[in-house]
Amino acid sequence: MKRMMNLLKDRKRLYNIVFEADTPAGKTFDIAVMIAIVLSLVVAFVETKPAVVGRFKDVLTVMEYVLTFFFTIEYILRLYCSPRPKRYALSFFGIIDLLATLPLYLSFIPYLHTTRYFFILRVFRLTRIFRVLKLFSFINEGYLLLQSIKLSIRKILVYFLFVVILVIILGTLMYIVESEQPNSQFADIGTSIYWAIVTLTTVGYGDITPVTVVGRLLSSVVMILGYTIIAIPTGIVSATMIDETRKKGKNGRCPRCGHKTDLHANYCKHCGERL
Amino acid sequence: MKRMMNLLKDRKRLYNIVFEADTPAGKTFDIAVMIAIVLSLVVAFVETKPAVVGRFKDVLTVMEYVLTFFFTIEYILRLYCSPRPKRYALSFFGIIDLLATLPLYLSFIPYLHTTRYFFILRVFRLTRIFRVLKLFSFINEGYLLLQSIKLSIRKILVYFLFVVILVIILGTLMYIVESEQPNSQFADIGTSIYWAIVTLTTVGYGDITPVTVVGRLLSSVVMILGYTIIAIPTGIVSATMIDETRKKGKNGRCPRCGHKTDLHANYCKHCGERL
Amino acid sequence: MKRMMNLLKDRKRLYNIVFEADTPAGKTFDIAVMIAIVLSLVVAFVETKPAVVGRFKDVLTVMEYVLTFFFTIEYILRLYCSPRPKRYALSFFGIIDLLATLPLYLSFIPYLHTTRYFFILRVFRLTRIFRVLKLFSFINEGYLLLQSIKLSIRKILVYFLFVVILVIILGTLMYIVESEQPNSQFADIGTSIYWAIVTLTTVGYGDITPVTVVGRLLSSVVMILGYTIIAIPTGIVSATMIDETRKKGKNGRCPRCGHKTDLHANYCKHCGERL
Amino acid sequence: MKRMMNLLKDRKRLYNIVFEADTPAGKTFDIAVMIAIVLSLVVAFVETKPAVVGRFKDVLTVMEYVLTFFFTIEYILRLYCSPRPKRYALSFFGIIDLLATLPLYLSFIPYLHTTRYFFILRVFRLTRIFRVLKLFSFINEGYLLLQSIKLSIRKILVYFLFVVILVIILGTLMYIVESEQPNSQFADIGTSIYWAIVTLTTVGYGDITPVTVVGRLLSSVVMILGYTIIAIPTGIVSATMIDETRKKGKNGRCPRCGHKTDLHANYCKHCGERL
Repeated sequence: MKRMMNLLKDRKRLYNIVFEADTPAGKTFDIAVMIAIVLSLVVAFVETKPAVVGRFKDVLTVMEYVLTFFFTIEYILRLYCSPRPKRYALSFFGIIDLLATLPLYLSFIPYLHTTRYFFILRVFRLTRIFRVLKLFSFINEGYLLLQSIKLSIRKILVYFLFVVILVIILGTLMYIVESEQPNSQFADIGTSIYWAIVTLTTVGYGDITPVTVVGRLLSSVVMILGYTIIAIPTGIVSATMIDETRKKGKNGRCPRCGHKTDLHANYCKHCGERL
Repeated sequence: MKRMMNLLKDRKRLYNIVFEADTPAGKTFDIAVMIAIVLSLVVAFVETKPAVVGRFKDVLTVMEYVLTFFFTIEYILRLYCSPRPKRYALSFFGIIDLLATLPLYLSFIPYLHTTRYFFILRVFRLTRIFRVLKLFSFINEGYLLLQSIKLSIRKILVYFLFVVILVIILGTLMYIVESEQPNSQFADIGTSIYWAIVTLTTVGYGDITPVTVVGRLLSSVVMILGYTIIAIPTGIVSATMIDETRKKGKNGRCPRCGHKTDLHANYCKHCGERL
Repeated sequence: MKRMMNLLKDRKRLYNIVFEADTPAGKTFDIAVMIAIVLSLVVAFVETKPAVVGRFKDVLTVMEYVLTFFFTIEYILRLYCSPRPKRYALSFFGIIDLLATLPLYLSFIPYLHTTRYFFILRVFRLTRIFRVLKLFSFINEGYLLLQSIKLSIRKILVYFLFVVILVIILGTLMYIVESEQPNSQFADIGTSIYWAIVTLTTVGYGDITPVTVVGRLLSSVVMILGYTIIAIPTGIVSATMIDETRKKGKNGRCPRCGHKTDLHANYCKHCGERL
Repeated sequence: MKRMMNLLKDRKRLYNIVFEADTPAGKTFDIAVMIAIVLSLVVAFVETKPAVVGRFKDVLTVMEYVLTFFFTIEYILRLYCSPRPKRYALSFFGIIDLLATLPLYLSFIPYLHTTRYFFILRVFRLTRIFRVLKLFSFINEGYLLLQSIKLSIRKILVYFLFVVILVIILGTLMYIVESEQPNSQFADIGTSIYWAIVTLTTVGYGDITPVTVVGRLLSSVVMILGYTIIAIPTGIVSATMIDETRKKGKNGRCPRCGHKTDLHANYCKHCGERL
């Protein structure tokens, strides 16, 4: 108890435990949070199974109370030990941490009680699990991926616009070809565009399929097209990633941590990244 | 009203508004066109839903008249302010702009009235939306993608011919294997080739599936083949994109705008492209 | 008629027409062969549609006779004008050309008459269509693709062995998990392995689907695995293609035709390949 | 018989036959093992087909006895001729070799007799088939692939975590949107997440499909997302493979065997790898 009180006084040490993952205490704290998040998800998912809820209703209710209490304490601790509490509260993770505590409290408000929309709040807790990257020092890999995506995003958006226009045109063509059939599954253009997306992305549910010869010919074109143009985003991301990898050699810096590297080094002496 | 008349006299300024997107007026004009295109599509799509048409028939008719009027004015303006009207009228976008105005006019011609084929004309309006790229200066990304596709197109066509011959051979084999079954879904070779395309492209509707052991073995070969040869177009496009990216460094020019770049520059000083 | 006789005497000129596609006469000959191949396929496919055969039986029979006569003449001409007839007869295309003439002749042999297996012979005619590459001088692109595939084939075979072992293990696991269910679709291990291939390759027919929770968990693993390991053949082919592209610069030779290139040339002066 | 006894005395020669594949005797031994493995799998698979078992029960039983005897002899030989038997017994392949002999022996133990779980033991025999790589000297290709995967694994794990969180969020959203429908297939969140995985990976069984307009819109987003983010692992593996390929040139060593290479060599003089 006294150790607890001492810890609460030493804000900097508390900060290291709550926000960082370098110390054993920090790691333990992060793992506890992860477990709590996964547990809260399991509770949320089980509650949608009527057969299970009947038998374990009390257990589930108690768990939700305990977990909400835990997340509330965690949020207060983070606010308390953060050097700039306001900035934390308004940051992406600050808002997510706050949302994580809300579902139970909101269910006390009359009339809101039964809505299914709280599931989203509970599921948003999951995004907090990205903090686990820090735990296993995977944060650099995450950063590298984000960097590559950021550099490719404009090209991918152009590709995306191209795909959207393509599926609208192909869906409309298919509507014209197939809708005249008796009991056609291509009832309206919206459905036809949905079919075009299902087919072009090679998902192929099979809930809507062409039956006429012309419709099947057109589908074949859509399929082969979808099978081929998937090469475009892949090419974009590959080119960006290779370019990023090549750059590290050029400017003599580690691509991961940015430290200068020795000329013939095979590994960065700072972070151990293979060069 | 007077400003309008002045604008109509100043053809060059009008050209900047109608064809370019550098000025606020030009941007506003482009956005207005985009909204009109999207609205006209929504009208077209809703008209294929019998339940909706009954209630909103008048609204839809009025909107189609207003939009056609807008597109007609736009087309006349483009013709009027273009320095070479004939060349514009015969260009790709010139023809699309003209087609965008037609659906309503064509529906006045007796007997043509009820055909579903006008949907295509309405949907072609959508390709005009590519002008939005200019609006957000994504035109370079679009150009780069087009360039990569153009450089890869011959290799992809050879791959395409290979895929077509493959699906015909595999479809015929499957017909021989499965068509003897009672109530076989592989009724004729055309259907079997359609199945081969659905399977090789990994779409997999499931409307036609093999039931014999030999048929399933053959399908497995088709699936694994399709799963592997998708690597070929991807490899082609990746190699081309990487090659294009590499070239910028070689000849000391920005790959986007073509301007000379300084030796150690990280960004093109002309267009801001990352080098 | 006399010109025909003269042509038959001039074997070298005949060779140019029949085997090459540089002269107008050679191109015309190749196009005629292509049309004959496509026609023979259409005849073969239509014959599997009982409804159509009834009405056009005579037309189809006559066409098959005419086409067989044409392919026979073509084969004799090729044999006659080839400088080394024996070598041609035993080459890949020589055998295919011979097979192209056989289906009708074989149907004269009693008892063989009705078998469906002749379709394969007719469809093999299709591989001759690869000669069209020569027609549009796409032969180099075809060669480049073949080269890349040849250099990657050993790595892809190892990957292939890995996929085969994976689907057998996953299929067996799924059999253990799902086969106990009443009316399970996973009736035996063969079917379960078929399911694993359908799922891993992301084809997903949906004719066999898991219904238990454990089965769905296992399928999820199979799907995400299949979605991820498709990156391996793609990576192999990309790396090979990029390597091939890079090599042209290194040794100062055109990657397409092998001719020496000038130092700063952008195109090979021999074949026009972009360097 | 006497040659057999001599061979048993010459442990080193025996080792070459049993563990290596350089000598004709070694190759023959490896091929015999492969055939035995494939046969044992065929026996195992056929036993799950009730119709077949009835007729061939005796043959299957005899074959299982013979194969188990063969695998036992093989395991004893490996233990006997290995210079470090303990190390072999505890190695990956040592354990697999031992497991390969067990299924029959375990079935003698009462009560264990009828469980289906022995299939897994039998199927694990299959992993021994990777030794075939040694047979065709594909071991280097296997090693190269493994190396590339090892270097990419951290980035792919981050991507994997991202995909898992994505499907949970998308599945929950879909549950909220679709579960209110009468007879909805999205019965609980677990099923909805399963649907999200089936859709995002572009497998698309079609056993669970959206029926509402909002549900179809959301599915479209999931499909296009899945179709696009497949570019990420592909990009990662491509970049790693290209990097590995490039390195061989840099440090003047063969990427396959590690031997020094001559400056202008096109092939490694040690292992024949194309440089």
